[in-house]
Amino acid sequence: MKKILFTLLVLCCTGATEAEDGYRLWLRYDQVADSRLLQQYRTSFSSIDFTTSTPILLSAFRELTTGLEGLLGKPIPRVENGHPLPAPGCLVAGTPSSSATIRSMLLEKEIHLEKELSPLGEDGFLIRSITTGGRKETVIAANTDRGVLYGVFHFLRLLQTQQSLQGLSITSIPAMTYRVLDHWDNLNRTVERGYAGFSIWNWFTLPQYMDRRYTDYARANASIGINGTVLNNVNASALMLTRDYLVKAAALADLFRTYGIRVYLSVKFSAPIEIGGLKTADPLDPAVQDWWRKKADEICQLIPDFGGFLVKANSEGQPGPQNYGRSHADGANLLADALAPHKCIVIWRAFVYSNETPEDRAKQAYNEFKPLDGKFRDNVLVQVKNGPIDFQPREPFHPLFGAMPATPLMMEFQLTQEYLGFSTHLVFLAPLFKECLDADTYTKGKGSPVSGTIKGMAGVANIGNDRNWCGHPFAQANWYAFGRLAWGAASSARNASPASAQAASLSSADIAEEWIRQTFTNHPAAIATIKKMMLASREITVDYMTPLGLHHIMGYSHHYGPAPWYDKAARADWNPVYFHKADTAGIGFDRTSTGSNALEQYAPGAHTQWATLKDCPDAWLLWWHHVPWKYRMHSGRSLWDELCYKYYTGVDSVRWMQSAWKSVKGSIDEERWEQVKMLLSMQQHEATWWRNACLLYFQTFSRLPLPAGAERPDHTLDYYEKLNFYYAPGTATTGLESRNH
Amino acid sequence: MKKILFTLLVLCCTGATEAEDGYRLWLRYDQVADSRLLQQYRTSFSSIDFTTSTPILLSAFRELTTGLEGLLGKPIPRVENGHPLPAPGCLVAGTPSSSATIRSMLLEKEIHLEKELSPLGEDGFLIRSITTGGRKETVIAANTDRGVLYGVFHFLRLLQTQQSLQGLSITSIPAMTYRVLDHWDNLNRTVERGYAGFSIWNWFTLPQYMDRRYTDYARANASIGINGTVLNNVNASALMLTRDYLVKAAALADLFRTYGIRVYLSVKFSAPIEIGGLKTADPLDPAVQDWWRKKADEICQLIPDFGGFLVKANSEGQPGPQNYGRSHADGANLLADALAPHKCIVIWRAFVYSNETPEDRAKQAYNEFKPLDGKFRDNVLVQVKNGPIDFQPREPFHPLFGAMPATPLMMEFQLTQEYLGFSTHLVFLAPLFKECLDADTYTKGKGSPVSGTIKGMAGVANIGNDRNWCGHPFAQANWYAFGRLAWGAASSARNASPASAQAASLSSADIAEEWIRQTFTNHPAAIATIKKMMLASREITVDYMTPLGLHHIMGYSHHYGPAPWYDKAARADWNPVYFHKADTAGIGFDRTSTGSNALEQYAPGAHTQWATLKDCPDAWLLWWHHVPWKYRMHSGRSLWDELCYKYYTGVDSVRWMQSAWKSVKGSIDEERWEQVKMLLSMQQHEATWWRNACLLYFQTFSRLPLPAGAERPDHTLDYYEKLNFYYAPGTATTGLESRNH
Repeated sequence: MKKILFTLLVLCCTGATEAEDGYRLWLRYDQVADSRLLQQYRTSFSSIDFTTSTPILLSAFRELTTGLEGLLGKPIPRVENGHPLPAPGCLVAGTPSSSATIRSMLLEKEIHLEKELSPLGEDGFLIRSITTGGRKETVIAANTDRGVLYGVFHFLRLLQTQQSLQGLSITSIPAMTYRVLDHWDNLNRTVERGYAGFSIWNWFTLPQYMDRRYTDYARANASIGINGTVLNNVNASALMLTRDYLVKAAALADLFRTYGIRVYLSVKFSAPIEIGGLKTADPLDPAVQDWWRKKADEICQLIPDFGGFLVKANSEGQPGPQNYGRSHADGANLLADALAPHKCIVIWRAFVYSNETPEDRAKQAYNEFKPLDGKFRDNVLVQVKNGPIDFQPREPFHPLFGAMPATPLMMEFQLTQEYLGFSTHLVFLAPLFKECLDADTYTKGKGSPVSGTIKGMAGVANIGNDRNWCGHPFAQANWYAFGRLAWGAASSARNASPASAQAASLSSADIAEEWIRQTFTNHPAAIATIKKMMLASREITVDYMTPLGLHHIMGYSHHYGPAPWYDKAARADWNPVYFHKADTAGIGFDRTSTGSNALEQYAPGAHTQWATLKDCPDAWLLWWHHVPWKYRMHSGRSLWDELCYKYYTGVDSVRWMQSAWKSVKGSIDEERWEQVKMLLSMQQHEATWWRNACLLYFQTFSRLPLPAGAERPDHTLDYYEKLNFYYAPGTATTGLESRNH
Repeated sequence: MKKILFTLLVLCCTGATEAEDGYRLWLRYDQVADSRLLQQYRTSFSSIDFTTSTPILLSAFRELTTGLEGLLGKPIPRVENGHPLPAPGCLVAGTPSSSATIRSMLLEKEIHLEKELSPLGEDGFLIRSITTGGRKETVIAANTDRGVLYGVFHFLRLLQTQQSLQGLSITSIPAMTYRVLDHWDNLNRTVERGYAGFSIWNWFTLPQYMDRRYTDYARANASIGINGTVLNNVNASALMLTRDYLVKAAALADLFRTYGIRVYLSVKFSAPIEIGGLKTADPLDPAVQDWWRKKADEICQLIPDFGGFLVKANSEGQPGPQNYGRSHADGANLLADALAPHKCIVIWRAFVYSNETPEDRAKQAYNEFKPLDGKFRDNVLVQVKNGPIDFQPREPFHPLFGAMPATPLMMEFQLTQEYLGFSTHLVFLAPLFKECLDADTYTKGKGSPVSGTIKGMAGVANIGNDRNWCGHPFAQANWYAFGRLAWGAASSARNASPASAQAASLSSADIAEEWIRQTFTNHPAAIATIKKMMLASREITVDYMTPLGLHHIMGYSHHYGPAPWYDKAARADWNPVYFHKADTAGIGFDRTSTGSNALEQYAPGAHTQWATLKDCPDAWLLWWHHVPWKYRMHSGRSLWDELCYKYYTGVDSVRWMQSAWKSVKGSIDEERWEQVKMLLSMQQHEATWWRNACLLYFQTFSRLPLPAGAERPDHTLDYYEKLNFYYAPGTATTGLESRNH
């Protein structure tokens, strides 16, 4: 009988027709498989003491119940404020104002208000095992409802990753105030640089129809501490600010508010003309100022906790204050003044460069913004991409970090893999993020990491309406890693001291392991293998795409695949040849004092590492130097041989990933295993394409042979140059051209 | 212990975090909830005798195992050809060539080859309860593997709809040879008239990455007998025929073949110029003929079971044979000759009309095609839309049905709700399909239904990459109904006689009930309520959109919402005012002998029903007649009052649907219940908009008051006329304009 029931149970749990489709992300809450641990968890948690007096607390309670009942495979009764008196093993969650039980703990000095709660601030939480009257209990406490929500998700993460829950003493405080996703989603549901289907926002059916996906999106974000979302593309349509669309945004804001997430909007600087009927958008024009003030009032009436505006101005064809001879500060302050009464912020992007300026594109943002330091209103943040070019597989950190001490900065990372193989390449980005966050700017002397120069982090979302959200099952890990790094507090540490600015304190390995355990499996051997793949993947991609400091040699416009030969773009600084500068003498962009001297934009301590050909690390060599083909590298190989070595190693490493993945078959579900297998095969194919195309092209300059015995390219250079991609995804614009009559 | 295990079981089965997202369509296979029936089924089926010697049989076996194990909640062991000797209650499936057990049944005369198997043809099947050697067994037998697959799906349908499985004696043979879905999907993944997200074909990742959705798409289609799919939009991109895309199509064909589905492609008539480098596409040019012949050879080498071409030519701007002074027959025969050696067909669309022709648009296709009857090659089918205009909520059947006796015709229905509220209105289309299929053409005397004049049915798909495939949970029912009607054999009949041309033999109510039981619930009260809603829904939509024979008064181009006032289209025959012809005298299109005399295109028996104002049924009145506002209707009301009555009834009926839906809360899963509730609220809102906008507009001609006491419009006509829809979905073109550089 027992056996039959067990069989039934297994069958039901497997769910004959429910395939593992990836929709559940890292919030799967399947029953704990380790029976010893399951027993331990079950005894530890017999009930939940939770008063749900606000929408956020209700979200937290629902998540806790769903999660705990799923993981423990049993119903967990609820008590409120100690009534009815719970059996031992009660989980208490709340704030001093929501929970009488927590208030009594404060009275009994089981928690100390000043010492333990105060430092938590608005978003922090503590999780504590306590013994009260001989009864073991677990407490999740915070100053705010949002803190409780974050604590609940963290607690569930501990169970999902199979941590022991005895003697817990966790304090967690986010390092960044702003932890925001930027969606480059257009109103017609195309997504610029989106590779996971189309926009999750169905503007047409909003506000009446609220897709279940919106709730799950909010849950996923809250689970990793993300507290803001910019709904629309920075190449913004002015229509976003019309009443029709604001009402739709407000419906999302109403929902997201219950998960502690504020809505922001990208705005088009010329909106006063396009939808306001004004003749100008000049920031110093009183009618323009009035228009923005009224628009801000209207928005904040619909969305009381509105976050603010994100602006791309005078950049890649977008209008901006410079159209009227005004500065970026004038433009940002115009919007800041309109938003100030509502406590909203302006996030002004520093991604500007001009084809007319005869200056290294890498230098232009610094040149433009550095002089404006101190000229922005208090509620303006300047958002700077991690590197000075554009989300390349590897770039040095942007010279603006640390260079604008009087201006709060936001970091802009790109989660969507515009230059990293779209959604078909497995590339775990945490090491890329960490490389930047941990880099020493030397702007306040040695030990001034980038992470200490920023007040927030924005991630350009890799989310679409694909069933599994991000296209590649492993792309979910980049969303996860971004949130965890923006929060930054150590999750595995038992006694973490209150974090101050330790955005980079979680290691890439920690994050990968957390994610694997929640998303795939707690099986130790599989974790080890998958983690190894993830941690190596970014360097592998650099190797087969842009080794040794090469950058921006992807296909024109769509950025798919290699096109180092491309020189037909309307603007010189969109051409791959601009960036690699290969000639018969050598290859690389001289940005030292003999060249563009982009180096001078960095603090002395920082630029000494790159300044000389001799000392410059291989990884950055061709970013900073134009290097002769036969130059002897640290490895002893010539530059040409080293370049070949890197490209060949990259491809070989993808093959290694393929075989590593084969070894985890059976440890994870068949469906996602099969998906990743197919994707790795595409990645291998494309890595080979990258290697062959780039080496054949660069060989026309080096005139040196490929390494003896190495796999030969299977096509001629001409073949690669003639490949055509009509519908590479992610290149759609704001969609105004498909506007209906 | 038992109780605890049961609780666990329930928890597991519910799946704490697995919401009912609609992805599983009507193939859910959840365990039978009725315990008595479950017991009965379990005793009846102890094992499966199935030899899987071919890919199609393997698909059938997998489905049978998955389905049966899900429904019965127990593993079902497999035997092959009677070894090991199965316990009583064996399910035997196969063909005489695949299964030794079936061969022995033929020998033992338990099945008779000539009498029972032969009439099944290529796609039919039988399901029979037999007793052999005192042992009760169930047999699914067919002449072909495809027949077995269809039989398996039918058998699973019986279980899912909780039929008794004792004494089964089912014979089922499809009425139509071609049962095809037409996807209007573009290569950039937009879908023309698609309202459920974007294309399910991810051309970019094909052929290497095979989305799981492709398999589930094939399963769903095979389950309702669909045996063909046209992958791309009839407004075709010539790129579809390039090698790159053919390889992608071939990957889909390889998969679909294992579910008995053939792939077809829409082709652009000018492809020889656009991708072939020729100077002409003239069908009589030998180079053009040669190009198509080679192209057909290339395709059929990649796709050995290729279905053929679908062509929209000289229609709405598409190129065609008339560009060269040739006829539609010349064009179709060109392609037919190229395809003939490969046994493929050409489906040539009759949807043609010209703005230059000073003739009622409703008459033009007939005028163009009728004279060509007999001039097409044998492997050409002419595809005719159900009505002479364009997929309106109600149209009379197309006059070409029965008018081209020497040419095989395909019916083209539209599943996607271009003119029926997109994917936000609940409209069950089976009654619309049936109204057309059952209509008497009188072309061979009384009793010549449309269904007898066609050899196949095409449905313009309503499928997208939304999680639930079709956007509206109830839109799935239209996909289902289309397949079931194209198959046509009675599913519930125990002793159905071999069907000949009974495409219309399943009633709308039968189909609705089957679908509800498989998709939502077997709860009798809920079935009754939901069925009532579904069966009423099409007439309700006609009432609030286009009552009394009105048609094509939707918003210009996007067809969203009412715009009876619109008169600005580039072509007169795209303007709503062209179709309703309202003036101070009355309203309606006179298509009798005093007007365009479209009537004359019908056989005398058919047109007498519509010819006189007095006898014409209300439902068709304004299609055929221009009627004075004060004309006394059959109800005794004036035309104006009747029009008001219909519009008001339409809105009231949506409100009735809302309250009916409330009553099924709890009988179905919370998630889909909530979705439909939101959608019904949108439908109610839009129905009211339709009513108000149309009545206010027509009132400017009738100058008569709205009914006393009736709800007043909440806006002025001016307000409705000025509404603007920038991004109504489904209006994207083939996407060539977003072609990358």
